[in-house]
Amino acid sequence: MLGKIPRVVIVGCGFGGLATARGLAGEPVEVLLIDRNNYHVFKPLLPMVASAELSPFSIAAPTRTIFRNQKNLRVIQASAESVDLSRKVVITGQGEIEFDFLVLATGAEPNYFGNDRFAEICIPLASLSDARLIRNRILSAFEQAESACSIGGACSSELLNFVIVGAGPTGVELAGSFSTLVSRVLSKDFRGVDVKQAKIYLIELADRILPMPGLPASFSHYAEGILRERGIEVLTGSRVTDIDHRGVTIERKIEAEAGAESQSLFIPTGTVIWSAGMKAASLTESLGVALDRSGRVIVNSYLNPVEFENVFVIGDASRFEQNGGTLPCIAPVAKQMGSYVASSIKNSLAGVSMPPFVYEDTGTVVTIADGHGIASFKSLKLNGPAGWLVWLVAHVYFLIGFRNRSLVMVQWLFSWLFASRGARIITGATDSIHSVNEVK
Amino acid sequence: MLGKIPRVVIVGCGFGGLATARGLAGEPVEVLLIDRNNYHVFKPLLPMVASAELSPFSIAAPTRTIFRNQKNLRVIQASAESVDLSRKVVITGQGEIEFDFLVLATGAEPNYFGNDRFAEICIPLASLSDARLIRNRILSAFEQAESACSIGGACSSELLNFVIVGAGPTGVELAGSFSTLVSRVLSKDFRGVDVKQAKIYLIELADRILPMPGLPASFSHYAEGILRERGIEVLTGSRVTDIDHRGVTIERKIEAEAGAESQSLFIPTGTVIWSAGMKAASLTESLGVALDRSGRVIVNSYLNPVEFENVFVIGDASRFEQNGGTLPCIAPVAKQMGSYVASSIKNSLAGVSMPPFVYEDTGTVVTIADGHGIASFKSLKLNGPAGWLVWLVAHVYFLIGFRNRSLVMVQWLFSWLFASRGARIITGATDSIHSVNEVK
Repeated sequence: MLGKIPRVVIVGCGFGGLATARGLAGEPVEVLLIDRNNYHVFKPLLPMVASAELSPFSIAAPTRTIFRNQKNLRVIQASAESVDLSRKVVITGQGEIEFDFLVLATGAEPNYFGNDRFAEICIPLASLSDARLIRNRILSAFEQAESACSIGGACSSELLNFVIVGAGPTGVELAGSFSTLVSRVLSKDFRGVDVKQAKIYLIELADRILPMPGLPASFSHYAEGILRERGIEVLTGSRVTDIDHRGVTIERKIEAEAGAESQSLFIPTGTVIWSAGMKAASLTESLGVALDRSGRVIVNSYLNPVEFENVFVIGDASRFEQNGGTLPCIAPVAKQMGSYVASSIKNSLAGVSMPPFVYEDTGTVVTIADGHGIASFKSLKLNGPAGWLVWLVAHVYFLIGFRNRSLVMVQWLFSWLFASRGARIITGATDSIHSVNEVK
Repeated sequence: MLGKIPRVVIVGCGFGGLATARGLAGEPVEVLLIDRNNYHVFKPLLPMVASAELSPFSIAAPTRTIFRNQKNLRVIQASAESVDLSRKVVITGQGEIEFDFLVLATGAEPNYFGNDRFAEICIPLASLSDARLIRNRILSAFEQAESACSIGGACSSELLNFVIVGAGPTGVELAGSFSTLVSRVLSKDFRGVDVKQAKIYLIELADRILPMPGLPASFSHYAEGILRERGIEVLTGSRVTDIDHRGVTIERKIEAEAGAESQSLFIPTGTVIWSAGMKAASLTESLGVALDRSGRVIVNSYLNPVEFENVFVIGDASRFEQNGGTLPCIAPVAKQMGSYVASSIKNSLAGVSMPPFVYEDTGTVVTIADGHGIASFKSLKLNGPAGWLVWLVAHVYFLIGFRNRSLVMVQWLFSWLFASRGARIITGATDSIHSVNEVK
């Protein structure tokens, strides 16, 4: 032990880190919570920020405010660069931090599966900066199309092609909210360019959108129907084979008389959003423990990497097997793991042994577009407006902090009533359509 | 004339451009409103964004939404690079735009009076990006001080020295709001660093703060008292002689027995905010007309540069003499000029001549800090809570758009009730203290 009071260092203030930190409130430990940002972000609402439905401030809360009343905790804004498990230190840009217990909740980053050049062009949707960048890019594309029509007289519809790769909840919610932005808001705002020309492509490798194990196929088809009604081009069974500055090439399975064939398709676009895969943030590589192919730490039933009982890896940074499958990278898993680890540390100090971690499925809620959603629980399956309502209540309820909750409600209310999106502001440097990745 | 309908090109969507555009609603002209951003920003509230009291979204409104119902107007997001008055074209990054009437409302940018190296270090407060940058810098300074104390054990108070150069309304309001952020909010958020060590310096060349011609000296002294009570170091009669990465050097007049002397003072700091002077945005240089020393176009009684009856220059880009003085660079001047120009264009088309422009003084309102303000009109002079209330009502009333007005009210209400500032989020790249100007 470092001193009389054992020190718990938590790296990362997402859902997992937050749950761990909260679970240790009032306990006889010194908690250091390290994050590179000074805020916790409610990531399930990132698609709404990317489509200018909500402002970035509505879904973020300053970490220090969240923990203002937790006396045994200190927040440190620092970038954790590596971990030396043998010396029990986390190495940050500002210096080394010793620990007795370490909780790694460092989350995930986009996985381009080795296609490094995709990374140069695609914008992921994994952070608040990403959401801001997507919002800027979408709005700038319309502005550029309008200028081109108004000044040069050269209207090009390619500027208004948008490709979203990956139709999990993030891709689906972004596509839906973006289509509403176009049909309800931007269509009234532009005069020169024909906004109806805008085309959103949603590309998915699986043969259905929302291909989550627990979700019935009928829900996927329902969601696909809603998106198609709104003019979104949904391309399932489609593999992205190339992405460059001109556009996206996909290979699509089609049913032909002689059996399954595939068809190559090129979509010209300057805007590609990547929501197709994630891998663990690279900090895990410094640990020297077993990782899976996505860089996630393989943890035992107690959420430890083997041989390190004082180290826990949780959430998107960990790989945990249960019932023959791997737990998905979603908020409820991270939260439950965080609470478990807090209990585990308490018990360890008290000399009490812990039962193994067991994830309880809390169900899935996805919003498709305005007033249409999906809620899938063990005993309750809802789609349509009822599914959407469950989505809304769940998300607003879980938003950190009373203040943000009401701000979100106010913003949504106004969006509905006045078909207006006040967060429709292009901030930071004006992003030209092909040099945007540097501007982050 | 370009076609049957004369075209009015307005460059800049600040208060002046907005007033001109609105004044031309329903008139038989084609209005093109060009701005490099896609929003109008309510600049009098920039200090509140810089101190995290309001989010940037609360004080900005998308230009297209403002003019959604004005059928004769088109918005173009483009950067105007120069103007060729003889060919009657505005040259933008996207191409040339012809005009019959031109209204230049291009505003102002910081004036460092030839000290180019000041520009490398200082952050101005002239745009929404500037406000975001100042907010990031202020918050990051506290985070860095906390990390230094917590990790390295090396607490340095210099990180928490902040210098504001220029004590006009912008500098005074920023100093006041920033001091409230420190005393009411940050003091509860930090554990390692002693927030009370934070020191805000307000430097002013004149011998009083708020040295505006119309404002009684007693009001300046009242304001100075309020700021001093809050621990702000107010240094009047002080000339900045140097600014570098280590800090700010000033020369200060002091009263000595042998008459006036001057004293040199060095303030170590990594954060210098410049609100000391503005000049016209550089577009005016391309006109080939007479400019004053600050690059402002010298206009006649009809707001034209001499010899160009179809060209108007208004707001901060123009220099207009009235009653032996020059009109100040403030919102009411720009607004009144904009309305005048709209009438002038209407009359010109109708063949009716216009009386010369006359500015009517609408008074001055300044907020000093929490619940203390100044309101100075011809027949009414208020300070204290009454002055503050007038400031609040005036600002919320004039905020563009119903939606933003209520958001601002909600945000302020929460700030008051919970001593919390939800906009306290460091966005974009994490700014290190000395390399921040590139991050804009």
